[in-house]
Order: sequence, then C-alpha cells, then structure tokens
Amino acid sequence: MTHPSLDDELYGDTLREECGVFGILGHPDAATVTALGLHALQHRGQEAAGIVSFDGRQFHSERQHGLVGDHFTDPGTINRLPGNMAMGHVRYSTTGETALRNVQPLFAELEVGGIAIAHNGNLTNGLTLRKRLIAQGAICQSTSDTEVVLHLIARSQRSSSSERFIDALGALEGAYAMVALTRTKLIGARDPNGIRPLVLGDLDGHPIFASESCALDIIGARFVRDVENGEVVVCEQQPDGSISIDSYKPFQPRRERLCLFEYVYFARPDSIVGGRSVYAARKRMGKNLALEAPLEADVVVPVPDGGTPAAIGYAQQSGIPFELGIIRNHYVGRTFIEPTQSIRAFGVKLKHSANREEIAGKRVVLVDDSIVRGTTSLKIVQMIREAGAKEVHIRVASPMIYHSDYYGIDTPDPDNLLANQYATVEDMCRHIGADSLQFLSIDGLYEAVGGEPRDAKAPQFTDHYFTGDYPTRLTDLGGRSKSEPKQVSLLKEAG
Amino acid sequence: MTHPSLDDELYGDTLREECGVFGILGHPDAATVTALGLHALQHRGQEAAGIVSFDGRQFHSERQHGLVGDHFTDPGTINRLPGNMAMGHVRYSTTGETALRNVQPLFAELEVGGIAIAHNGNLTNGLTLRKRLIAQGAICQSTSDTEVVLHLIARSQRSSSSERFIDALGALEGAYAMVALTRTKLIGARDPNGIRPLVLGDLDGHPIFASESCALDIIGARFVRDVENGEVVVCEQQPDGSISIDSYKPFQPRRERLCLFEYVYFARPDSIVGGRSVYAARKRMGKNLALEAPLEADVVVPVPDGGTPAAIGYAQQSGIPFELGIIRNHYVGRTFIEPTQSIRAFGVKLKHSANREEIAGKRVVLVDDSIVRGTTSLKIVQMIREAGAKEVHIRVASPMIYHSDYYGIDTPDPDNLLANQYATVEDMCRHIGADSLQFLSIDGLYEAVGGEPRDAKAPQFTDHYFTGDYPTRLTDLGGRSKSEPKQVSLLKEAG
Amino acid sequence: MTHPSLDDELYGDTLREECGVFGILGHPDAATVTALGLHALQHRGQEAAGIVSFDGRQFHSERQHGLVGDHFTDPGTINRLPGNMAMGHVRYSTTGETALRNVQPLFAELEVGGIAIAHNGNLTNGLTLRKRLIAQGAICQSTSDTEVVLHLIARSQRSSSSERFIDALGALEGAYAMVALTRTKLIGARDPNGIRPLVLGDLDGHPIFASESCALDIIGARFVRDVENGEVVVCEQQPDGSISIDSYKPFQPRRERLCLFEYVYFARPDSIVGGRSVYAARKRMGKNLALEAPLEADVVVPVPDGGTPAAIGYAQQSGIPFELGIIRNHYVGRTFIEPTQSIRAFGVKLKHSANREEIAGKRVVLVDDSIVRGTTSLKIVQMIREAGAKEVHIRVASPMIYHSDYYGIDTPDPDNLLANQYATVEDMCRHIGADSLQFLSIDGLYEAVGGEPRDAKAPQFTDHYFTGDYPTRLTDLGGRSKSEPKQVSLLKEAG
Amino acid sequence: MTHPSLDDELYGDTLREECGVFGILGHPDAATVTALGLHALQHRGQEAAGIVSFDGRQFHSERQHGLVGDHFTDPGTINRLPGNMAMGHVRYSTTGETALRNVQPLFAELEVGGIAIAHNGNLTNGLTLRKRLIAQGAICQSTSDTEVVLHLIARSQRSSSSERFIDALGALEGAYAMVALTRTKLIGARDPNGIRPLVLGDLDGHPIFASESCALDIIGARFVRDVENGEVVVCEQQPDGSISIDSYKPFQPRRERLCLFEYVYFARPDSIVGGRSVYAARKRMGKNLALEAPLEADVVVPVPDGGTPAAIGYAQQSGIPFELGIIRNHYVGRTFIEPTQSIRAFGVKLKHSANREEIAGKRVVLVDDSIVRGTTSLKIVQMIREAGAKEVHIRVASPMIYHSDYYGIDTPDPDNLLANQYATVEDMCRHIGADSLQFLSIDGLYEAVGGEPRDAKAPQFTDHYFTGDYPTRLTDLGGRSKSEPKQVSLLKEAG
Repeated sequence: MTHPSLDDELYGDTLREECGVFGILGHPDAATVTALGLHALQHRGQEAAGIVSFDGRQFHSERQHGLVGDHFTDPGTINRLPGNMAMGHVRYSTTGETALRNVQPLFAELEVGGIAIAHNGNLTNGLTLRKRLIAQGAICQSTSDTEVVLHLIARSQRSSSSERFIDALGALEGAYAMVALTRTKLIGARDPNGIRPLVLGDLDGHPIFASESCALDIIGARFVRDVENGEVVVCEQQPDGSISIDSYKPFQPRRERLCLFEYVYFARPDSIVGGRSVYAARKRMGKNLALEAPLEADVVVPVPDGGTPAAIGYAQQSGIPFELGIIRNHYVGRTFIEPTQSIRAFGVKLKHSANREEIAGKRVVLVDDSIVRGTTSLKIVQMIREAGAKEVHIRVASPMIYHSDYYGIDTPDPDNLLANQYATVEDMCRHIGADSLQFLSIDGLYEAVGGEPRDAKAPQFTDHYFTGDYPTRLTDLGGRSKSEPKQVSLLKEAG
Repeated sequence: MTHPSLDDELYGDTLREECGVFGILGHPDAATVTALGLHALQHRGQEAAGIVSFDGRQFHSERQHGLVGDHFTDPGTINRLPGNMAMGHVRYSTTGETALRNVQPLFAELEVGGIAIAHNGNLTNGLTLRKRLIAQGAICQSTSDTEVVLHLIARSQRSSSSERFIDALGALEGAYAMVALTRTKLIGARDPNGIRPLVLGDLDGHPIFASESCALDIIGARFVRDVENGEVVVCEQQPDGSISIDSYKPFQPRRERLCLFEYVYFARPDSIVGGRSVYAARKRMGKNLALEAPLEADVVVPVPDGGTPAAIGYAQQSGIPFELGIIRNHYVGRTFIEPTQSIRAFGVKLKHSANREEIAGKRVVLVDDSIVRGTTSLKIVQMIREAGAKEVHIRVASPMIYHSDYYGIDTPDPDNLLANQYATVEDMCRHIGADSLQFLSIDGLYEAVGGEPRDAKAPQFTDHYFTGDYPTRLTDLGGRSKSEPKQVSLLKEAG
Repeated sequence: MTHPSLDDELYGDTLREECGVFGILGHPDAATVTALGLHALQHRGQEAAGIVSFDGRQFHSERQHGLVGDHFTDPGTINRLPGNMAMGHVRYSTTGETALRNVQPLFAELEVGGIAIAHNGNLTNGLTLRKRLIAQGAICQSTSDTEVVLHLIARSQRSSSSERFIDALGALEGAYAMVALTRTKLIGARDPNGIRPLVLGDLDGHPIFASESCALDIIGARFVRDVENGEVVVCEQQPDGSISIDSYKPFQPRRERLCLFEYVYFARPDSIVGGRSVYAARKRMGKNLALEAPLEADVVVPVPDGGTPAAIGYAQQSGIPFELGIIRNHYVGRTFIEPTQSIRAFGVKLKHSANREEIAGKRVVLVDDSIVRGTTSLKIVQMIREAGAKEVHIRVASPMIYHSDYYGIDTPDPDNLLANQYATVEDMCRHIGADSLQFLSIDGLYEAVGGEPRDAKAPQFTDHYFTGDYPTRLTDLGGRSKSEPKQVSLLKEAG
Repeated sequence: MTHPSLDDELYGDTLREECGVFGILGHPDAATVTALGLHALQHRGQEAAGIVSFDGRQFHSERQHGLVGDHFTDPGTINRLPGNMAMGHVRYSTTGETALRNVQPLFAELEVGGIAIAHNGNLTNGLTLRKRLIAQGAICQSTSDTEVVLHLIARSQRSSSSERFIDALGALEGAYAMVALTRTKLIGARDPNGIRPLVLGDLDGHPIFASESCALDIIGARFVRDVENGEVVVCEQQPDGSISIDSYKPFQPRRERLCLFEYVYFARPDSIVGGRSVYAARKRMGKNLALEAPLEADVVVPVPDGGTPAAIGYAQQSGIPFELGIIRNHYVGRTFIEPTQSIRAFGVKLKHSANREEIAGKRVVLVDDSIVRGTTSLKIVQMIREAGAKEVHIRVASPMIYHSDYYGIDTPDPDNLLANQYATVEDMCRHIGADSLQFLSIDGLYEAVGGEPRDAKAPQFTDHYFTGDYPTRLTDLGGRSKSEPKQVSLLKEAG
C-alpha cells in the first residue's frame, strides 16, 4: 500500500483517512497559520479544505475543492478570512459525495451567537440521530455526520455555546477529534476512546488544536500535550485579552485506544502521535518483521512511499542493503484524467517503475506498510519480476486486514479484502505471485508502537480491522458489524 | 429605463425583479419543459437558475449561476434531473449575496418526505420569523426569506406536506408567488394581495405553474387561469396515474392588488398578466401619455427596449412618425467586464447609440417606460443633442417613483430617486437637460392597465412606489416604511 | 432572417459577415479606443477579437475567443496593450476553424520592423498564392488568407513597410478592407471594387480607420470620409509628433461596387455606408416593397431585429399599423448549449414568441430583410398561425438569393438556398406555408440604396448573390463560380 | 538541491532542464504510447506538453499547458490524435515565455508535405540564424530556437524531407536531441557532441526515440541503443508496411560529451544514460564523497528527493546509518498560489520538515546532489539546527557551479551562484551556517559516472558549469561566455 493521493483511484487499493482539523485562538495571522497547519495535514485529506474565521463581529468562511495550496495561500482568500481566531478542515474524496455542502467547517447561527465545527472521525449512531432530528423539524443540508452535531448544539437547552457543545457530544457514539469556534472560544474534543488524535499546541501564547504534531512544526509552534481521550479543552479569549484554558471530562473515564492505523499508515512520519514518533514506530515494525520473518536476500526495497521507514528498519535489522529499487513518479497528479482503455492496459507503471539495475539477478525483499485488496502488490511483483529479479519476497509491516472500519477510515467491502479471499497466507502469496509473503503479527505491531504485546482484556489500541474488536457500539448497524450502505439524503445535488 | 440585464450595473439606473418560478407535474420531459419555461422567464432574473425534479424515489437538484441556456439545455444536466415532476426558479444578482446557497429551489427532507420550494416575491416579516426560528434551534444556511418558509414547513405539526405548506403560509406577510414540489404534489400559491403573478397552465393534461403566460407559450401549453390572490392550488398525482387539482383559500378574502410595475416594466410584452395583455397595456400608457402631454414634434423615438410599446402607442395617438432613433447594442453582454476608467468615461454609448440621420435637425419625443434615478435619461438626452436634435422632449409612461419596494423589486435608496431630489418636474427636466419632461398620471396608468381610474379607497393595484400606500404591514421595519439594511447572516461566505 | 448572433447556429438560416476592423494612430488611450470601436463593430463578428498595439519599442498583442466586452474592457488586458497606436479585429465563428492561430490581427517581424494586419473580406486567389509561397519555403501557421498577405509583405523587396504593403496588395484578387500597423504608420486600404466598407475618422486630430461609421460615433470621433475603392491611405507619425496623411491609388481606376448586403443586413442601422444611411435605405426598401407588393392587412409585423426598419417603412407607406407582433428573447445567449433533442423539438420559440393579442384574428404582413434557406420563415409562419392569425403574408426587403459569395460572407451551399429549391415564388410560398410571399425587385433594392435602378453595363453595387455577376475573377475556383471545399492546412489543431 | 517541480519557484534555488522528447512509428496506439512516454519524461519539463500525430492524410496537433496527465490521458484528446505515427514534447516554464505558440512540437507545411519537430537542448547560434532568416522574408511566430530549424528545413533546396532536415542541422551550433515526424518517417538526431541524450527503442517492431530509457520501461519497450553523437537515424514506413531504419553521420566525427548534469540531477534514477545507470552513478558519487570527505557522525540524512541515492552511497561507504531525517511534503503542488507575505515568512518548511526524533542530539551529515545559489541549503541547515541537531555537516555530490549553461539548462545569473559569491569553501560554509561543507571533486564525479578521472585534453563529458570549458562556439554571445539577455520577439503576446 502506498501513500494516499487521488491517483490511487487508478488502483483502488488503499485506505483513506477522512479528515484533519486545525484551529488557533488569538493570533493576528489566524487564517494564515490555519492554512499552513492544514497544509501540513494535507496527507489526511486531499479532496477539499475549508477555513472559518471570526473577526469580532462576523464569521467568515471559505470552502473549496482541491488542495490547501490551491486556494488558501492566495492573498485574496486569506484577506477574506479576517480576525484573530480561525479553524479549518481538510477532507478526502468519497465517491459521489463531493458536493461543497459537505465540506467543513460547518457553521450554525445560534441564538447565543455563531458556532463552527470541524470533525475528524465518524459516528456510529449518526444516522440514528439524524432521523430523530428530522422528525423534530430539523432541516439537514449536508449528508455528513457533522451537521448532526451542529443540530444537537442548536437544539441544546444550555445557555453557553461551550455547554451546548458538550451537551451535544453526550449524544454521540463513534470516533471524533473535533474543533469548534465560537465568538470567544476555541474548543477541542476527543471521543471517550480517543480513537482519532488531537494535540494541543502553543504559538507565542496562542493555543492551537491540530490533528498531528507536524502541523505545529510547520509554523514553529510548541507541542504542549495531547488532548486526552474523552476530554474537552475550552480556550477562551477573556475581555482583558488574556486567554484561559479549561479542561472538562464530561464522560465516564476509559482507557485510551488510539487507532493503530495512524501509526501504520495515516500519520506523517515526522509526527508524534500519543507521545510516540511515527517514524520510529514504523522502523520498529520493520525490525520486528525482520525478526519474525527473516530470509536470505540481496536487497531490501521499499514500496514507496509508505513502506520506506519499515524497509529501513528491516534493512538495519537484517543487514541486507537498502536500495531504491522502485522509483515513484510524483507527476501522477491529482488531475490525472480517467485514462483511455489503452492507457489503462499499461497498468501500475504510471506511478511506479522498477530501477532495473538494482533488481536484475537479485533476491528482492519488498517491504510494504499494509495490504488491503492486494491488487497493487500483484502488479508490483509482476513489475519486479519483469525487471529480472531472481526472487521476490513480500514483507508487510502490519497484520492482515479482515474487518471494516466505521471510525473515519474508508475501507473496501470486507469481501474485497485480500485476507478474506484466501484461506491461507500461502494462497495469498500464490495469488500475488511472490516467492514468499509474511505479515507482521498483532503483538509485533503492538510492541513496535507501544513497547508491549496486546493486552487482550483491555487492548491499548483500536485494532478492529485486524481483530474484529470494535471499541464502541455500532448503533446504526443495529449492532451488526457488517458493512451496509449508509442512507444518503433524499436529495442528490452536484456541485 | 431600459430592460434589465446584468450590464445595467454599468449604469445602475434600473429596477430589478427578484425571481421567476415554474413547475410541471406528470410530464415525461419534466426537466426539459421546466428549463424552457425558465428560459422564457429569464427576464425576471439573470443571476442564477435552479431546477429540482423527483423521480419517484429521490429528488434531484441542479443550481447554477448564469442563464438558463448556459447550463440547463445541456443533455448532461437534463439527464441528472430525471422524473416526471420538476420545478425551477430564476433569480437576479443582488450585491454580495451571490452565494450558491441562496439559489433556489431550496429543499428540505421532512419526516413525511422531501419538499422543494421556489419563491418570487419578498416577505416583510422574514427577519422577524428568522430570529424566532433560530431561537428555537433552527439552523439557517442561506440568507434568503425562502429558507424561513422551509423551516416553518419542517416544524409544522400537520401531517401532510401540503397541509404543512399552507400552515407555513399563514405566518407570512409580504408578497409571494410560490411553487412547491413534494413526492406526489405540485403546489402553487399567491399571497392574499396577489402582488406577484402566477398562472396555471396545462400541457397535454399536465398542470403547470408559471410566473407569466409567456412560459406557457414557449412550450405550446394552454393557459388555464390565474392562480387567485390568496389561493393555494394543489395538483396531485394519484395512484392510478390521474392528476387531481384542488383549490384552497386559507386566508381571509381580499381584493387582488397586482403590482403595477409588472405592467410598466417587468412582465414580458407578450404575457397576459391578470387577464390583460402587457403589450396592449403599455401601448395604452403611451396613448394616454400622448393625450395628457401632447406636443408638436417630428419624430417619436423609444428608449429601447422598454419604451418601445409605449412609443408606438404615443406615435399612433399623436400621429407623429415612430422611428428607431436610438440603436441598442445587444452585445453589451452579461460578461462585460468592469471596464477601465478610460472606457467608463465614454459612458452610455456602450449600450445605446443615436441614429443620427433620424435625429439631426428634428424635434424628438423620447418615450421611456419609467425614470428611476435619472442618470440614464441624462446621458441619453445628451447623446440625442450631440446627434443634432433641434428639441428633446421626454415622455415617461409611468408616474414618478418616490418610495422603496419591499415585495421583490430591488429599488435604490429613496434619496437617490430622481423624484426625491428635485422639488418640481421643471427642476428634474432642467437636471436631465431636456426641453420638456412629463410623466403619466397615476389615473392615466390605472386606466391604461385596468380601464378605470384609481379607486382611492380600495386601489385595484399595488402602487406604493408611486403613492406610498403599502398593501401589507412592514413588520421587519417596525412599521416604518424606510429603507434599512437588512441583517445578513452572521456568516459570510463566497461561492 | 434575423440579426446574427451565435445562437443562430440553432437554426442555421442566416448569412454571416466575416470581420470588422478598427485602428487609431497617436491617441494616448489607443487600446481603449480600439476596444470601444470593436465593440461597436461586434455585429460584424462575435467569435473572436484581437488588438495589437505598439508602444514605441515593442508590439503587444491580445487575441481572445468571445466578445470584445468579455476581455477587452478588462483593465488588465488594456494595460497589456500600451502605446498610442493600436488596431484590432473582430471575426465570426466558422465551423472547425476556431483555432486562436486564425484570430487577427496577424503579426510579422520584418527586417524593417514589425507589421500587424487585420482584414475584412476574402481573397479569390488566396489558395493559389498560398501554394506558391509554400513552394518558396514560407511556413504558414494559420489557415487564413490574411497570413498570405503577411508573407507577401515579408518577401517584398521594397524598403519601407508601407511600400511592401502596397506591393503585396498588387497580388491580391477579391475583397478586402484592410488595416495595417507598423512602428510609425497606420494604413487603411480597400480593394479596387471597394466591396467591403472602410471609413476614415478623426478623434481630436488622431486618424482612425473603421469598417463602419458607428465605430466613430461610440467614441465621439468625427467622420472624415470613406476610404475610396482601390485607395491606400497611409497615416504616419512624424518625428515632430505631427501626423501626415497620404493617399495612394496604386491600381487602375474602377467604379466602386459596395456589397449590397451591407445595406440589406450586415451594417448597423445607425451607420453611414458609402455616404448613405443604412436605416434610411432599409426603410426605403420597405417602402418600395409596399409599392411593389401591396395588400390589404390589419398589421405590419417585423421579423426582429433585422426586419424592423423595413417594416416601419412598409407600414408608413401602406398605412397599415406597425406592431411588435413577434417578441424576441434576448437571453438566447452565446453560450446556449447544444440543447437536448427534446428541447430542439420545441423549435424556433426559443428565440421568438408570438405576441398573441396583436396577432389573433388579424391579417398579418411579416416583413423580413432576406430569406436564405427559408427554414426560419417556415417556423415563424407556423408560430404566427398558431397564435391565431387570419392570414400570414411575407414581404422580403431584398431579392431572392441564388449564388454563393466569395468575398467574406459565409453563404450556405447554393443547393440549400430556398431560391434554388423551388421553381416559382408560389412554390416557395407553399413550402413556407404563407398566404402570399413577395421579394423586393433588384431595381427596387438599387433604388432604395442608391436612388437609381441597376445599371446593367456598370452595376453600381456588388450583387452577385442575386444576379451571378461576380465583380472579380475567381482564380481559386479555376474560374468556375461553384462552391468547392477550400483546402485547409495539412495540420489540424484545437485551441 | 531537490528535484525539479514548479513549486521550486518558491525558493528559486534549482536548475531546470528544458525538455524531453518522444516519438514512435507504426504503432496502432501511437498517441497513447507517446502520452505514456512523455509522462515518464515529465521530470524533464512540467510547463507544457504537446503531441503531433499523422493519420496517413493529415497531421493532428494538441498542445497544452500543464502536465501530460492533465490532458493527454483524456480519451477525447487521444481520439483527436489518430494515426500510427506520433511524437511529442514536454517543456518547462520559463518566465514570460509561456505562450502556447512556443509549445512544441512545431509544425510546417512544406511543398513536399508536412513536418513536425521537437527539440531538447539549446542553440548557441539561434539568434544569429533567426536574424538572417527574417532578412530573407521568413515570418517567425514563436520565440523558440526550434522554429529557426523549421525555417531552415522549409527553405532547404533538397528534395526529400529527411534530406532537408539533415541540411538544416548542418547550420546549427549548440545542443540538440531532436525528433522529427514526416508523412512516412520518424527521425531522431543528436548534436555532434551528444550533449543531450536520446535513445532508440523498440516496441513490438516499432521504433521509438526517447530522451531517456525510463520512457521505454513505462510501455514495456526494449532498449536498442543510444542514438550516437552526430548521428541522424531515419525510420521510414515502407509501402509494404515494413519499417526501414537508416543511420546517417553527416558531421565530422567527434568524441561524445554527454552533459554531466544529466547524471547529477536531471535524468530519472532508473534511466540508463550513455550506457550507465543513473542511480548507480549517483550512489558512486555518494561513495566517492564519503572517501574524499569523511567524518564522524551519527546519521546520514538525504535532502529529498535529489540527494537520496548519493546519501545511500555515502551511508554504505561510511557505515553511518541512513535515516529519513527530512520529510518532504508532496502536496506542495504545481498550483501552489503565490503565497501571502505572512506565509512566505514561514519559509522552507512548506516543502520540507525535520523528522525531529532522528535529528535531535545527533551529528547529522546532510547529503545533497548540488548547490546552486545556496538559499535552500541555508534554510535547511537552520531547520535541522532548530530540530536539535548537535552538528550539521553538508556533503554535496557534485563540484561547485561557476558558469552559465547555454545548452538547455536554465542557470541563474553567474553572480548569484554560491560559488561566485564567496572566495573559499569555508566562507560558503559559514554563510550557510553548517559545521562543515564539502563538494565532490571533478575527478570524483568523472570517476563515479565514467569510471575514470577527467581527461583534460579530451574531456569525456560536458562540464562547463564546473570548469568553464564550453564544448561549442557561443556565436550569439560573440564568443563571450557571459550571460546576456536574449532578444525576444518584437511581439509580446499572452496566451
């Protein structure tokens, strides 16, 4: 599996994170800082981006399809986002839901003033809540879970916007790292399990919330701490100009269970997630993989770019030289037009090419971060063989994926997962055409990330895609952990 | 005053209608027919257009900036609007409110199914209702009055969508000609005064609502009757495929008061409004004007295109030859870019030019439909003089405009109206630079349109812009008939 | 036949002029003035527009698809056209030749400096010259005749650019009104027959060339005189800042033969062409038509907009009232998308609608400027009948069209002309469905335009479309006056 | 220095290759294959791309700004390029010269048929030739050297197109790898020094020319051989369907001198250039650098992506661990808008970020491929220091750059090169802020690429940017190897 970008649709063999969030309070260049923060979080969503600011009198919103850099570095756009408070969101492209009405942040004008919210994650009772709200006369404009939260806030009987926000969170099940902006407050919240990450930072005394620490680094902000699971952090601009920061824990305490896929694939390698270096964790996955699944070979080749840190770890542990045996074409761009059939026939090589001199006549270990449907792996093995490899071995730095995610990762239908299509690893290996295939064990992964094997009674991480152990109820599914098409709006609209 | 088009912004000397509506029930080409109907109503709004259809299962919506012909004749767009029920809307451009979220029809998913509505007119208690709804937890996405109606429908306790619609109308003050589409019904309604027009038509047994009869002619549909003031007409597709048409009159009966400006300026000359030919009414305005304000002259010249029918009437009554003394450049298009200062200096001639041979050495009677601020008149007189006219007389086929409209016509600040800037007609004439200036009397106008003078106790038409006699309460203004900036949303968003 | 605009493609029943030209020397706002002049000439070509300026050091060129107002009023565009000398061109859309490389003015860098040229008209030996040039090593980038002229200039052995220009003209056959711009000169030229018009104007001492006088009026410039047939007028900026104007007559003298279709259809009604008011000539065509083909009727109705002046003339001569019995929809815009089949089925009504009240029960005289293929006439008669007319009579203010034009008017294949499809006028009338049909005689047309009947030995005007009498050799056709596909470039390129 | 992409303009510290070329003869999917080949060569030019095909009757051309994948994978575009012969070109963005008229291939219609040419390289006598051609009456449309070649072909007295092509090459000085397409032939040629690369490939019997072998790999074509320096290879489709391949050597034999910068930076690492693996050469540069400039350190960090192969070589030679200490943000896209000043203030971090955990407290060796102006190096050192590095050492895998290139690489003004701004390496190091700085020696580079040190009498490679030893005359400069602004066209045109 390779790093996410729109061109992956050419292959359809990847997972996608739904969102990244960012907000800052009290900074004179709030919109600029937010644009930079979102740029650093761009890997979490490339379809669309939005920023809302508040200038002391009015909220301002800009939401656009495309990358942050396509619009939000434009002086014109930034000038339309005045004020010293701003927050934003990046999201990725899901089929048929690209309407601008779904691009966040979403905004509501309340009797007590306006509120904007942005959400990374997914609710498991969103549809249930939505039906109840419509029965009560609410008008839903978007098809997103996030609007449900907005309606809950609007209908809350509490007096202040932050109390209403907390009130609304009480009704939610699922995963959320959420940021909200009111006329005086910037609020950050994580769900009781802490499935999605959210950090608190500080830039010259101005608090920041961001999905990952790399969004702090880009602007030279200081990492303060993670927002805790089940915590709501309310930053408020006081009349005297000072900023107060208060922590609320409105939910019953639970052990944090961060999503393992943040470590395996989603988070940027230079981010610190849950206090752990993502790059170092990935290297350890590669090392553990070399220990669990050693072999004799001439060269360790990463499947770029996702497999590179694990490949370095594998090479260091095994002593086999690390070489760039696959070159990635970075110009397979976002605007790559749906190609003609005759171009499709040329397959995976649009994005990857074999570095023939490093492959020919050699025993090659390919290291990838994960395998979803296996279609890319199959094509890459074929390409490596055509380049003259003597042997091709695949080592995957995570366990086999069996189950759907309902917390913000877009997983294919379980029937399409490689792990569900073949009874044994040997069968999978044969299908892919490799000489050998091995996955990292679940304990190997836990050890690489957290230093200890999985605690079966109280798992330290969210890992249902590997294990089937979902961290919350799945209310919208009636408790059945099976993928069902989510009812969309009665209205279908382009735009 | 000349016919409305975006280029009028170059001059800013015009009134604008806000909208046109159209809907059809049961026709296999419902979206196509709606597109054609809206095309015929294009003069009522050129900024944006939208169509919603229902295919028996799902509603489909397409809303676009620009003309109907820019998008809605495209097979791709029409194909995205399947179903045998459709309705649509054209609207014009108001400053700073061009966001797509304001383009109609607006849609809501109700517990009892979806409903789409489109509205021509303006509420005089829209802001008051909006504030009340927000206090009750409603989230307003647009800044339009129409969304207020949608929320009232969503919150109604009635069971069926048509009952909810009528329930919502009960709370409204102001002017509306409204069309609504549910899963089985097409509904048309006019406010108790019947300020805005709405006709019921029939195409091969399929009922149609349209703002003007010209939208029936374009598709060869039959004119059935006007929807009456205060009437709600509900057309419903029955399970057996037949269509029922029921009339409801939920409000206290009142005399109809159609807006006189529909006759003076807005409606297309080939439309029949309130049972009267608009073209014939305009010709009679010109005839009455010739009777009220006769003079000796060599040539009657219309200010194109608005003044042409009245000029023909004036010429026929006076016996002075009718000539095209002013040529209009139809290529002053919608996309005419904000020109450079040096181009602006060349002024009105971008759109009009004098037909010198018919002007030079002659005594010219210019006939215009109305005068708003007088800036265009001033430039046209100057152009006619430069072309060598011996005398220039202006005859205006409507009375002087003193007051703002709050029912869907975008009027300038009253202080900017010519009639409020000068004490006497002689002063206005001097300002404009004409040799004489005369306006049609209010009774002359009433007689031209309705055949009788104004009934002061129960005026037959809406005429407050001339008389100050508003047909409804002006709740949002606290009863004061003075122009005030309407509060916009707390959120400002481009797009 | 109605006035030309892109939407006419919906009907395909019109002739098209190829171009309009404009140039000014020595004016500080040269590009602005040129943009305005081209805007006034927009009716001569709506596909594309271009302007070239010279700033004393470098030539600047902007060429764009679309209307003048779409681009050339933009301050950014005007700023990219500095200098006090500028010229420009508007052209219309021909099928498959819309590439920007064909948009004029065309430019060549000569050893003696640069030259830009713009051309209205068409050469009858352009292809012959083109083949000869290619054989000599010239590289032709465009498919236009105009580039041929540019190559002749580049290869001329004369020393100055104006001498080279005159040298090149000597090789041309056909029609041209041409404007050229060098580093110090603005040159205007008409072909020996003077088929296309070109006037010399003056704005505050700065000479102007323009296709029609209406381009002078828009900027308040003074009409000086027509450029004569076979004349080359060279305006030169002298070192002392003064401007010299010299006239050259390099060709054997001939009688001028202006194209009659300029009067019938192409020129704007407010233009003075060949010293004659176009509007007055059209009115006289209508008067002569009333004299030649009188009848009893209730109402004279113009086919808008082209037939309006002749209809006024017809009404004045006959005493039958003039009424706007057909309303034109001006929003049938340039961007009207190729409509769906179901929309096409609704036919001509997209553009025209009957003003039913003025038609029903009446004997109607429809006055049109010309009939090309008759398809529009057929649809309009049908529409008028459906509106309830008792009788429909067509009167055409020009003779029948039998022959192709090769001088800049885009005529359909002769086989598709109505006049060639039916043996008698009665047959044509029956085909169109009218109660009677009559065309103006050739002498009636000559009299309306020039005051005298046709001089058969030395006709005063170009009239081959009516008579077959071509004013020049047709070299590219091998002398045969039959339409043949002109060889295009070996290269086909979009853009 | 990092890999070239438009975003580099944010930093301005890079060299740029001007072009890549590709052509194929006789393949049924010629345009598709060409699009794929150009996609693989995208790193050689990202501004614009063009393809010309010939279908046996007519040439077809599509030229577009943007990436190959933006347009040339679109079925619509491919369908407009029919035929079994095609060739294409990618080019990069130079300031102010982005007009489409400069996008290749360029085409000329000759008396003997059409010819299209595409050119990688630059002429050193292009301006001299251009002036001579204009004096002879040629009209130059573009500002590119390539059009000069086209005019020489058009004016050649030879009979066949390939003879004319060779005739034209005889007049050229400088660097060129050129591909030409006529009605039956595909021709490839390299200049006498062979400065730019060009390979001959074969796809199922159909000959291919491409700038680099990676363009063969993407389509599964076989590498046949390099086109030799000074060789013209003519592939011709014979009447019987077979293809002949003939080699011509019209110039005096010389030793080949491939441009060293192809190895250092331009060519893709998986390409074989001049028979040598680019990746292997870069790794050897890193190894030689480790031998020439060893030190004690904790970690070897590549400046991505350009420095990665050399860093791997350095790490392998030195035994110091290779780590991804700098993470590149791949979403700094082509459309990154010119950012606001406040965003610019955040500097280099838009593209790169430090992987803090691998840097903090460590002695870091940064390996980059080259240093041009040093601005990026300065910012990266600062970033690494801020991430807590104990020491920062820079090792550059090529010598210092002192001189401009005139053969197709866009070099900054020599005064802006780091090497010309400081007297000693120590001064440079101090400026950049590193603890030490060392460049690879010229012999070290020669050895890495060719296996032997530089032969001072007959250098094996083109290396003037390091040594000042230009391989050809610099005619346009009058022999002076000093950067002078090249005269552009007298015409300035956008588009």
